[in-house]
Amino acid sequence: MLPNKKHHPSALNEKPGISPPEIISAVAVGHIQQFRKIQPSAKELVEGILAGNITVLSRAITLVESTNVSHLTKANEVINACLPYANKSVRIGITGVPGVGKSTFIEAFGKYLTGLGKKVAVLAVDPSSTISHGSILGDKTRMEELVKDKNAFIRPSASGETLGGVARKTRETITLCEAAGFDTIIIETVGVGQSETAVHSMVDFFLLLKISGAGDELQGIKRGIMEMADAIVINKADGDNIKKANLAKLEFNRALHLFPAKKSGWTPTTAACSAITHEGIPDVWETIQKFLELTKGNTYFFEKRKEQNQYWMLETINEQLKTNFYNHPEIQKSLEQNKKAVQNDEISPFAAAQKLLNLYQDSKKSP
Amino acid sequence: MLPNKKHHPSALNEKPGISPPEIISAVAVGHIQQFRKIQPSAKELVEGILAGNITVLSRAITLVESTNVSHLTKANEVINACLPYANKSVRIGITGVPGVGKSTFIEAFGKYLTGLGKKVAVLAVDPSSTISHGSILGDKTRMEELVKDKNAFIRPSASGETLGGVARKTRETITLCEAAGFDTIIIETVGVGQSETAVHSMVDFFLLLKISGAGDELQGIKRGIMEMADAIVINKADGDNIKKANLAKLEFNRALHLFPAKKSGWTPTTAACSAITHEGIPDVWETIQKFLELTKGNTYFFEKRKEQNQYWMLETINEQLKTNFYNHPEIQKSLEQNKKAVQNDEISPFAAAQKLLNLYQDSKKSP
Repeated sequence: MLPNKKHHPSALNEKPGISPPEIISAVAVGHIQQFRKIQPSAKELVEGILAGNITVLSRAITLVESTNVSHLTKANEVINACLPYANKSVRIGITGVPGVGKSTFIEAFGKYLTGLGKKVAVLAVDPSSTISHGSILGDKTRMEELVKDKNAFIRPSASGETLGGVARKTRETITLCEAAGFDTIIIETVGVGQSETAVHSMVDFFLLLKISGAGDELQGIKRGIMEMADAIVINKADGDNIKKANLAKLEFNRALHLFPAKKSGWTPTTAACSAITHEGIPDVWETIQKFLELTKGNTYFFEKRKEQNQYWMLETINEQLKTNFYNHPEIQKSLEQNKKAVQNDEISPFAAAQKLLNLYQDSKKSP
Repeated sequence: MLPNKKHHPSALNEKPGISPPEIISAVAVGHIQQFRKIQPSAKELVEGILAGNITVLSRAITLVESTNVSHLTKANEVINACLPYANKSVRIGITGVPGVGKSTFIEAFGKYLTGLGKKVAVLAVDPSSTISHGSILGDKTRMEELVKDKNAFIRPSASGETLGGVARKTRETITLCEAAGFDTIIIETVGVGQSETAVHSMVDFFLLLKISGAGDELQGIKRGIMEMADAIVINKADGDNIKKANLAKLEFNRALHLFPAKKSGWTPTTAACSAITHEGIPDVWETIQKFLELTKGNTYFFEKRKEQNQYWMLETINEQLKTNFYNHPEIQKSLEQNKKAVQNDEISPFAAAQKLLNLYQDSKKSP
């Protein structure tokens, strides 16, 4: 509030604001404001995360998502310190085109899980969020029950220039959430380009959400997505839709059998459910339990996680090499004109690439 | 031949070899031997290629395939000089699992094309060739008619550590072949990992070769391959197989209609043919002609080539960035131990990546 300039009447004067309601503790507000002002150390962040403090967890995720290079070391320090406390969760990927009711499904499924005593974190990988400012989970009001649940944590997709960057940040956020005690991680994505592949590489179980349509259910299914699915769940199986949903279930079941057997030893399942009546929601969780039992028994679960870790190390390297290159001022100056020359067949794609690479290398040598 | 040591009898003595048959011109042999000894300049290579000299073309391809860094500049020089004479061909990708008869199909199809007066180059992308020393086209005797045809040029897959490297070399070889006057480029690949995607990104038309099996034809089709196909051709439609092949054709035709419409405006076709009876071979060419007519008419053909050029520039950069990194002595020393630490959850994938990237950056700064 501005100082009350009562001796100088002016239209710019402000009236005193409304006092905060009694329910908000002045002490707590003071703590939060102080916490926001200071930059907590890596140690403080880790302690807060391990204590399950959601404010600190959010702070740490913001640090991880930061594109400020100076934050990188601290972010890695926090993640590394969290690592021994992570990995004790089940990670579930959920995909489906807009309109299948991902948010309502996750809300119903998440509430069911917190009802079982689970702690549920909902994250997202949405490479389009740079443009749309978070089309997935951006509007938390679509999960208004889950967002109020103290055993649930909802975080919209990181934004970034590349899918690789967005995916890496979500992958790091998983570790932080697990260390904060979340035992069920749900990662939502939408069928944009390769985002399903990225999510598939960070989850234990991959669920494809569909709705029954008019006629051919297989129409327009994206490359490889059915092949990645451990389960296909037909949502909106309620009211007049029940019969159609069950037919769709049969059709998908038939289609799934066309794919070769999975390395996990798991036979993908199909099911119908309603996020409104909650019919079929418990069965989805039961299916995941069966999957975990099988794949932990045959060690596939653990092997896959090891492979995923290695994959993420290499992915991070490859991603960073590209970021360093394309963000270099010399490259940014010359990339577009080389692209044009290549398009117009004035220079071969390989010679243009070599030219840019030489430019980059030379600029690194000079101080 | 070793000098004849007639005064010192020994079991190691060699008998004089058999004289070359008269048909081989001593003058030509002399020229070839001399040519092999000297390193022709970029200018000499380009002149030879533009004159359609196959020996020089092969030499230039070997230069392009060389992993010797000192050859890179010269290779780029040759490719760039060939560029204005390239691009005037149709590029056809052919894939199919081992056993579908790719070699016999390409032999029959290639002979049909040279019979029409075409000049046909057959290349391959086979990332497994590093281990198997060229499983595709390695055995040229499988195309014994085509290999003798003076209007055909057959070159086995380049070998390399990565698919990206192998694909890049094939992509460069296309330019050289086109400059040498080949108007039809056939690129063969086998369903190994992502090799189809790589081939798809360098061709105008993508043909999936299949055979009719017992029962379900769609079984085991790899992710996305059907979606990439502009035509599915059922090979070995001869003898007792004709009926089965026609049934398979119908089944594939139905499956193709499940995919969304293509940007090219082309509706993928299915056909049956026999590489033995040559039944259906001319129809494959006619289909390709129709495709070209449509996509040149709606300019998709030209747009796609521009996009492909740009893609290859970026791919070459990304590939080279990785090669430079992973081949660096410091990285080679530390990569494995970091991989293990990541697998055993001793360090996060991201921190390990950062450690390696810092190591790399520091080693570049020091002289």
